[in-house]
Amino acid sequence: MSPKDSPTQAGDTREAAAGLQRLAPQTGTGFLLRAGEQLTVVDPTGGQVSDLFCFSADDHAEWLSSGRTIDFANTIFLTTGHTLYSNRSTPMLTVVEDTCGRHDFLLTPCSQQTFDLLYPEFEGAYHPSCLENLVTGLAPFGVTPDMVTTTLNIFMNVWPEPSGELHIDPPTSTAGDRFTVRAEMDLHVGLTACSAEKSNGGTCKPIDYAVHPA
Amino acid sequence: MSPKDSPTQAGDTREAAAGLQRLAPQTGTGFLLRAGEQLTVVDPTGGQVSDLFCFSADDHAEWLSSGRTIDFANTIFLTTGHTLYSNRSTPMLTVVEDTCGRHDFLLTPCSQQTFDLLYPEFEGAYHPSCLENLVTGLAPFGVTPDMVTTTLNIFMNVWPEPSGELHIDPPTSTAGDRFTVRAEMDLHVGLTACSAEKSNGGTCKPIDYAVHPA
Repeated sequence: MSPKDSPTQAGDTREAAAGLQRLAPQTGTGFLLRAGEQLTVVDPTGGQVSDLFCFSADDHAEWLSSGRTIDFANTIFLTTGHTLYSNRSTPMLTVVEDTCGRHDFLLTPCSQQTFDLLYPEFEGAYHPSCLENLVTGLAPFGVTPDMVTTTLNIFMNVWPEPSGELHIDPPTSTAGDRFTVRAEMDLHVGLTACSAEKSNGGTCKPIDYAVHPA
Repeated sequence: MSPKDSPTQAGDTREAAAGLQRLAPQTGTGFLLRAGEQLTVVDPTGGQVSDLFCFSADDHAEWLSSGRTIDFANTIFLTTGHTLYSNRSTPMLTVVEDTCGRHDFLLTPCSQQTFDLLYPEFEGAYHPSCLENLVTGLAPFGVTPDMVTTTLNIFMNVWPEPSGELHIDPPTSTAGDRFTVRAEMDLHVGLTACSAEKSNGGTCKPIDYAVHPA
């Protein structure tokens, strides 16, 4: 890891002390987040999206629901204080810190098919994707691709015109922006450094994260 | 059925000839829609929402995906010409007719928990819901509540402020408005006359529908 890639380069002493880990560009991971623990996701360079999805660790038929969350929050833009609900309308995560203020909860994670359909310049060639990286990260827990619905796309800058037309603009996040959630139940969490060039201002960059004890 | 409830009351001869069926207020149904068949959903009185969800009839692990559909259509407002995709990025339905022009694909179907959380006036009492009615309609095919993600809420008038705040206004549909989709694969379809008073201008009304041969 070069100094440029050091997790503490754009972070602060709190982050280093909390055991910040780095996801290389276009990769992901999966882990157990116990009730009461907090997960901080940091954009170390600015302009980089991180997709998050989770399941109840006790029962994978309970999963993060964009539709329930948006309905109960009455907004498409989630931030500090909002609860993220499961398909069973049970709180899974609470947003406790958000220094960026713009995230997406409308779109599914990028997949090979996303690149096939929306990136004709790649001519159908293999491309890393958040769906693949989420499933690879969560596979040790038994997660398969069909189980992943709409992800919370942290730092992703998606906004609709009054006509409904969507804009996917470069993230507004700058180096060091943080998004922290507290687990309200034991969770299996998948997290990525997003692989889709167009969602990340043209270049795919790393993401840092840390789990804080309850 | 009283004359007032007759499916042809607010319809036209085309609808009667097509074998229009009526969903009573706050009810639902489930059925097989074969590839090439068309499903027409009619608001017979105006101002009434109908929730739709579907699975591949061959494999219920493939289901209607709001996130894939919105991503590929690049709009939150689906209408004539748009394709509705599965979680596997495969076309499930194509919208071939839409005389209303305003439908929602952001929110989950109303459930008992919706009423518990958003309708304090009901004090937690049992309330009919689209989730219950979808699952009852699809239960003969083996569908359970955890399998239903975000529904296409036909005629539902949900729109975001630039701030992200959502408005759920009375539907803009008037008596006889129609929404027709063509199946692109064999589907198990659930369909309701929505049970949520606030989404339907204060009163829950019937929905008519017809399946047209390929």
